[in-house]
Amino acid sequence: MPANLPNDFSRLAIHTITNKPWNLAQCIQAYSRAGIAGISVWRNVLEPVGAAQASTMLRDAGLKVPALVRGGFFAAADAADRQAAIDDNRRCIDDAANIGAEMVVLVCGAVPGMPLAEARRQIRDGIAACIEHAAAAKVKLAIEPLHPMYAADRSAINTMAQARVICEALSSPWLGIACDVYHVWWDPDLENEIALAGRQKTLFGFHLCDWRVNTRDLLNDRGLMGEGCINLRQIRSWVEAAGFAGFHEVEIFSTEHWASDQARYVERIKQAYLQHC
Amino acid sequence: MPANLPNDFSRLAIHTITNKPWNLAQCIQAYSRAGIAGISVWRNVLEPVGAAQASTMLRDAGLKVPALVRGGFFAAADAADRQAAIDDNRRCIDDAANIGAEMVVLVCGAVPGMPLAEARRQIRDGIAACIEHAAAAKVKLAIEPLHPMYAADRSAINTMAQARVICEALSSPWLGIACDVYHVWWDPDLENEIALAGRQKTLFGFHLCDWRVNTRDLLNDRGLMGEGCINLRQIRSWVEAAGFAGFHEVEIFSTEHWASDQARYVERIKQAYLQHC
Repeated sequence: MPANLPNDFSRLAIHTITNKPWNLAQCIQAYSRAGIAGISVWRNVLEPVGAAQASTMLRDAGLKVPALVRGGFFAAADAADRQAAIDDNRRCIDDAANIGAEMVVLVCGAVPGMPLAEARRQIRDGIAACIEHAAAAKVKLAIEPLHPMYAADRSAINTMAQARVICEALSSPWLGIACDVYHVWWDPDLENEIALAGRQKTLFGFHLCDWRVNTRDLLNDRGLMGEGCINLRQIRSWVEAAGFAGFHEVEIFSTEHWASDQARYVERIKQAYLQHC
Repeated sequence: MPANLPNDFSRLAIHTITNKPWNLAQCIQAYSRAGIAGISVWRNVLEPVGAAQASTMLRDAGLKVPALVRGGFFAAADAADRQAAIDDNRRCIDDAANIGAEMVVLVCGAVPGMPLAEARRQIRDGIAACIEHAAAAKVKLAIEPLHPMYAADRSAINTMAQARVICEALSSPWLGIACDVYHVWWDPDLENEIALAGRQKTLFGFHLCDWRVNTRDLLNDRGLMGEGCINLRQIRSWVEAAGFAGFHEVEIFSTEHWASDQARYVERIKQAYLQHC
């Protein structure tokens, strides 16, 4: 049974990449004025201002920060590159702590031509090498399974079950899963895996957008909630039945929406959230 | 360990859609002249000539026909449309018998907005309604799991495991699976599921192409073998370890390759098959 519709924006957060034309200050101002409670910060908008200044800006605006996005990319052909990735993830964790982000989202990585089984081993080892740093910083690490259409070059972790297996192997309260409907909506095991993540206390993040039936581009044609075919209310009901009480993070890569008026787009996101999520 | 490379074309078949600019007569003539042993016939090229004439053409050319492509599309919003799909699949089975095709490949269907669980039920019921007809015609039915990026509108069956569950539920020697590398290469359970299909004697078909790392289009940008990142030899070794002794069917949807010289393209397919499969 679908959950009740949300009736306010106290659990709504927007990923800054959703409003790609904007810098961090513009996102903060717009979301804050719109009464949206949370912001997930992407590193591309964090970098120009730095974590210290960003922290002040976010605190002054009263915005909560579910996630800094994104770490990961652990798979690499040689050991030096793998170590560089681990070092970069530790810096990302430090930045997350500095801006008060609850978690770092991990897009785990894949290398064209590398056997997926090898990439998956490297990912597990890379995450393992970051957990102590994350625990010390009190920042959670959230493995985000990516849609199988990204297995070639972005992530060899493509299902909730695969993310679960890594969580079980490394067993840390600082390691869990970010469940993005775009990547997992098709999965016949989704309901079970969400319930299992709830029981294992690994359901750290929940990301919203929609799958356009006529998807025109593999990367940048995500839909605003309601523009596609995902049963968002049903998935939200599963997530909440699993005990998830965190933010509903809107993360939309869309050439079409990036070209639109961004302030008006934020209003459309709010309406879509009330109507479809 | 990768299997040995193929050294002849006695197990190579090409799907007519791979040479979309050609009609059936052109495909038959070209494959036959090229020393390719098999042809999988798509219904769009069968329809203009009809099954009776096609049967004569295929027999005269000495080509084997692993598959008639494609049946399926069982999910529909109302019962009349579901019955129409079943009727159409029975006609497809008759055509397959008439042209001497070993199997009908099933692209199972999906309806935008219909819950996937419901689509999956309708697919199972639709297949169930066709098995007796298939057995009487001595034509196999091969469920082809489609890549999860097609779950919205083409197939709610997206993994080998899902196809297996249907095969187990309906348990008929006439029902099995067509394993297309394009759809399943990313699946962490692929090796296990192929082995299981071997034990259950449901591994009916094996389709080849490649996944372009920079895929430009969700439908028509498949790669020729070697143009992408799929470890074809490894998957072939799994398939053969599972006891598969059927055709290696090349099935490539590609706007780029369709625009090229088709006779030269057939030669490139042969070379790619020897080098990469």
